[in-house]
Amino acid sequence: MKPGIITLTTDFGQIGPYVAAMKGILLGLAPGAALVDVCHSIAPQNVLEGSFVLAGIVDAFPAGTVHLVVVDPGVGTDRKLIAVKAADQWFVLPDNGVITGVSRGHPSQGVWEITNPNLARREISPTFHGRDILAPAAAHLIKGGDPAELGAAVSRFITLRNFEPTPTENGCIGEVIFKDTFGNLITNIKEEHLTGRAAKDWVAEIAGQRVEGIVRTYGDRPTGSLVALLGSGGWVEVAVVNGDAGRVLSAGPGTTVWLRTAN
Amino acid sequence: MKPGIITLTTDFGQIGPYVAAMKGILLGLAPGAALVDVCHSIAPQNVLEGSFVLAGIVDAFPAGTVHLVVVDPGVGTDRKLIAVKAADQWFVLPDNGVITGVSRGHPSQGVWEITNPNLARREISPTFHGRDILAPAAAHLIKGGDPAELGAAVSRFITLRNFEPTPTENGCIGEVIFKDTFGNLITNIKEEHLTGRAAKDWVAEIAGQRVEGIVRTYGDRPTGSLVALLGSGGWVEVAVVNGDAGRVLSAGPGTTVWLRTAN
Amino acid sequence: MKPGIITLTTDFGQIGPYVAAMKGILLGLAPGAALVDVCHSIAPQNVLEGSFVLAGIVDAFPAGTVHLVVVDPGVGTDRKLIAVKAADQWFVLPDNGVITGVSRGHPSQGVWEITNPNLARREISPTFHGRDILAPAAAHLIKGGDPAELGAAVSRFITLRNFEPTPTENGCIGEVIFKDTFGNLITNIKEEHLTGRAAKDWVAEIAGQRVEGIVRTYGDRPTGSLVALLGSGGWVEVAVVNGDAGRVLSAGPGTTVWLRTAN
Repeated sequence: MKPGIITLTTDFGQIGPYVAAMKGILLGLAPGAALVDVCHSIAPQNVLEGSFVLAGIVDAFPAGTVHLVVVDPGVGTDRKLIAVKAADQWFVLPDNGVITGVSRGHPSQGVWEITNPNLARREISPTFHGRDILAPAAAHLIKGGDPAELGAAVSRFITLRNFEPTPTENGCIGEVIFKDTFGNLITNIKEEHLTGRAAKDWVAEIAGQRVEGIVRTYGDRPTGSLVALLGSGGWVEVAVVNGDAGRVLSAGPGTTVWLRTAN
Repeated sequence: MKPGIITLTTDFGQIGPYVAAMKGILLGLAPGAALVDVCHSIAPQNVLEGSFVLAGIVDAFPAGTVHLVVVDPGVGTDRKLIAVKAADQWFVLPDNGVITGVSRGHPSQGVWEITNPNLARREISPTFHGRDILAPAAAHLIKGGDPAELGAAVSRFITLRNFEPTPTENGCIGEVIFKDTFGNLITNIKEEHLTGRAAKDWVAEIAGQRVEGIVRTYGDRPTGSLVALLGSGGWVEVAVVNGDAGRVLSAGPGTTVWLRTAN
Repeated sequence: MKPGIITLTTDFGQIGPYVAAMKGILLGLAPGAALVDVCHSIAPQNVLEGSFVLAGIVDAFPAGTVHLVVVDPGVGTDRKLIAVKAADQWFVLPDNGVITGVSRGHPSQGVWEITNPNLARREISPTFHGRDILAPAAAHLIKGGDPAELGAAVSRFITLRNFEPTPTENGCIGEVIFKDTFGNLITNIKEEHLTGRAAKDWVAEIAGQRVEGIVRTYGDRPTGSLVALLGSGGWVEVAVVNGDAGRVLSAGPGTTVWLRTAN
């Protein structure tokens, strides 16, 4: 039997006992599970960034993987916790829109609310549902447990509108949703929004700068050039070759990007 | 057989080869062990923070887990290295007080000094006992080795006094021992210090501010409110709802907190 | 059968989906492999730092380990991707000199170019060869695949000259190649460069300061002292006892260090 994979994505940072406490619960309930840290440095309570990160890994993991996500500004309030099946994988997370990046490209194969107290830890901290409710739910699923035991099937979940760019007459207006370590600015505009014209015919406007054409890779232009390209996740990104576009443009998540045809 | 779990807690930071070198030794000696990073961003040589982090994970891990801890200002001097059994788990660490947070809630089930050169690496760097002595000792224990082979049983280990608040007539005076990613200030005051009065009757004073009552969770008060609550580890913490208490109060580890009844 | 180990070293930082995407590919192709993060905070495109980190782990991992390294300023250009066998382990990486630290101490046991499209992912992003080419190649090797299936055997790979200090009449001139979390400055000068004289007879000059003698460990001198010692990786390092040499000396990677005999 292939060992099951559980990934973890949080906004807890690289500090403190919190991520490890969830791992202890997971390994106690599902011994032998392969735990994979996706990212724990999601900006605090930044659901949009969490959603982008999940979108960037779903196609890389095998069927059956369980993704545990704790970006949860509403912990302890009446927001729901849900398990979503999509791409033959499981997503165990708060119902706050963090699933948006996945659900955009992969239709839901089922959604269950997580309410069964018998599958949670005996004592539930009102400030750490990730450890006390979500981790046990993830362990239940990786062991092949029936999702219906978690709680009632539900038909809806929250999705974020600002994950999609706004169409215009000759292109679309989007925004930066992630700045990577190199300062590359990844936008919410995807290949599917670039239809009907060749790559060289597109113009990106961002932070007062105009970038002509969409290149294939960084190395296609000289060091220091501002370029737009389709990044490895299928998103349009703006970069400075061997440089830091975020710094050069004073831009980051939220910066508007206007993509349009040149004439 | 359940695969054994070895956790790692250090002040090495997320950089360099040091943590991975320990993992190589662990996996070479104990193939198949499940390695879990707890935290490598303990402030350099901050034994109190290391102690807090360990206290926050011990109840989450299953019996038999081995915790390898390298926060070791005295490396290469005559401080002892010890293996402590508590909560049916193992703690392999320098005898500098970093065990305090665990030993406070879990009586020792045995302590052994680590001195046997045959269980260490052949060449021992005077500056990296974590890799050359502690990692092999952890591997020995996860494989079910006899702790007495590590060295002589000892009856004492160092504990930190400042891990405990000081009782006063109507409460106690403690301090912040950890600031998390969200800026929440976790103190060394625990639920057990809050006896005889209802949650609403307590007042916390910190950094010139007065916080009335102990709430159940962040969401119980409006955004921006300064609140005190019992956090997920059982410690009193001071937080700003959807904000950063550390920044708002210019407070952090070491800041005094006075908890007392309101009248 | 011992489970295989794959380590990951990148300059992707602790953010975003990139490292996890590689892990998903690895675990999908090589279920059960033990993944070990070495370091993802190599300074962007800093091949010298990557090389230092690899040199620091090679002796700690067991034979058969596969090391996947993505520090790749030239991604998408005509730089080669290679698999190098050394120390009975595998190194899967760009041919840009990042292997230097390993190859310096361990003769090559074979080098293969990675060109076989059948072992890569079906769609190859021009900006993420780590995920689409190197990760599948690493999975191939950990499963015992023939390296010759990756591509043609080659006889040469790039090595970095500045990994070696320059000999002088009475010592050598080197440079800092890594600053660790504690601010210790690790140089490219190794024990083998300190021949013919006792440890006490060497003088290090760095950033206008003169450090007399090479001590055994930090604790050999009082707090605040500037010391030179042989660190745990066998490199000469300059440290401030219980302090931060990088800050005290305003020094870091690239700072010149002159090591010579005292008279």
